[in-house]
Amino acid sequence: MKEKEFIQDIKNILNSKYIGDDCAFLKDLGIVITQDSLVEDIHFSRQFATPYQLGYKSVMVNISDVCASGAKPEYLTISLSLPENITGEFVNEFYKGAKTAAQEVEIVGGDITGADKIYISVTAVGRTKGRNISSRANAKIGQKIIVSGMHGSSGAGLKELLSGKKEGKFITAHLMPEAQKDFSRMIAENIRENYAMMDTSDGLMDALSTIAKESKVCLSVDFDKIPHDKDLEKFADWHDLLFFGGEDYQLVATVPEENTQGTVIGEVKQGAGVEVCYKDKKVLYMPEDVERKLFNHFKEEK
Amino acid sequence: MKEKEFIQDIKNILNSKYIGDDCAFLKDLGIVITQDSLVEDIHFSRQFATPYQLGYKSVMVNISDVCASGAKPEYLTISLSLPENITGEFVNEFYKGAKTAAQEVEIVGGDITGADKIYISVTAVGRTKGRNISSRANAKIGQKIIVSGMHGSSGAGLKELLSGKKEGKFITAHLMPEAQKDFSRMIAENIRENYAMMDTSDGLMDALSTIAKESKVCLSVDFDKIPHDKDLEKFADWHDLLFFGGEDYQLVATVPEENTQGTVIGEVKQGAGVEVCYKDKKVLYMPEDVERKLFNHFKEEK
Repeated sequence: MKEKEFIQDIKNILNSKYIGDDCAFLKDLGIVITQDSLVEDIHFSRQFATPYQLGYKSVMVNISDVCASGAKPEYLTISLSLPENITGEFVNEFYKGAKTAAQEVEIVGGDITGADKIYISVTAVGRTKGRNISSRANAKIGQKIIVSGMHGSSGAGLKELLSGKKEGKFITAHLMPEAQKDFSRMIAENIRENYAMMDTSDGLMDALSTIAKESKVCLSVDFDKIPHDKDLEKFADWHDLLFFGGEDYQLVATVPEENTQGTVIGEVKQGAGVEVCYKDKKVLYMPEDVERKLFNHFKEEK
Repeated sequence: MKEKEFIQDIKNILNSKYIGDDCAFLKDLGIVITQDSLVEDIHFSRQFATPYQLGYKSVMVNISDVCASGAKPEYLTISLSLPENITGEFVNEFYKGAKTAAQEVEIVGGDITGADKIYISVTAVGRTKGRNISSRANAKIGQKIIVSGMHGSSGAGLKELLSGKKEGKFITAHLMPEAQKDFSRMIAENIRENYAMMDTSDGLMDALSTIAKESKVCLSVDFDKIPHDKDLEKFADWHDLLFFGGEDYQLVATVPEENTQGTVIGEVKQGAGVEVCYKDKKVLYMPEDVERKLFNHFKEEK
């Protein structure tokens, strides 16, 4: 979590209005842009992911960031740094996976260099024409909270991989996530008022908490309404997987009442933090609770 | 040089018309985009470069790629991966250097992650409106070959650093290169016909040879006309530094007769390769000669 400490310093030095959302919205050019890196033995292990899956996921996580902005993903560049012992076969498989994930999004450049471990950095560009672009700071009291897809599956998959399991639906969810292009397009093309949207790359709770913090509101969610695979409930810590598991790459948005997209899980209220309503109790997570919980969660896995 | 072998495979898998030039020209969005990485102990050493200089150079080499396309550099994203032992001071200095190099080009995003060595990947976006965009395949017989600035200084600086020297004009040229924005703008705004342009990141000879190869012509240059610092001649291998030293980030272009920008060093002829005319002899470098020479050059320095 040391990286988070650096970010405020960087913001101060750059003094840019663009830093904050996953994508920078460059209005004058009609695009959003985002760049994210995956580092071997930090973000992935060659032990668990095939080269094809690595290429696939590197591209998908960046397309997901563009989807979170509401823009239409259009172009990608990929920078790949590889150790000496990497074969041509690895590179071929990586790019096949990347191309599969990219689909109609075109990979237009990048570079390839030497390194001591695998470093992957992908930039994605989205077109904003005809789309209403989201911001994390846009959630408004009275808006509904909606989500795409199912939550917790990817975290369950990682848990299975770490325990030695090789395949299954949760492992597929972890290794081959899918960016929510259609959900994003439906929101961005149809909603007229300002709305917040984020992907759940760092977990559903992180997305909810970040929107609450940046929008200075409380996000109240009904636990029973959060869509998840019924088999997730077989995990003793499934509540944690649902909220803190991460890497599902689903979308969370706050939208006006008349929206019909996605699953409604709660509403935006006056206040701060994320309020989770269970049948018998309410639990309030403030940003510092979420960070501590995420930190402990990651620590356990190392 | 193993990376070069991979590139043809990648081109085949991606089957994209965009791969080839330093920047991808995305006509529909009116932008060019380029992404390049710098890896510790491959492209730089903390022993020789301060964090400020690293930030500066990472940004400048990408702005230089945009300049080579003829587009106006507008936005940057920076992805930084850092070992645990890196301090906040390092990050601050890095970003101060990056911001100094960027000048009016805005740094709008990126990410920061952990790693075992320093890994820097920068994406630059340029605007193409009002500019004629270059291609390496555009050189035409009869065009003049022009260059910006002086050549060989950066290579001489690297040589001095490796021999233990700490400062001087050549070392400054190596650590703090300047992208040729004005030269690029004058060419791209004023030349109506197609032209080739490249920067000399991998050396003057590499740029000449690549343009010759991609355009299927011969680039004939007059050795005595190549601008260089007179003190470069104090190095025993100064001819090699001039042609193969790399990292001067000057621009080479092939332009019509009426152009008045830059220093004319030769002309585009029928044939192949790069012909260097000395007072008493002509030497022809074919692409394979240049690659062998570059390979040996880099090997000596390791």
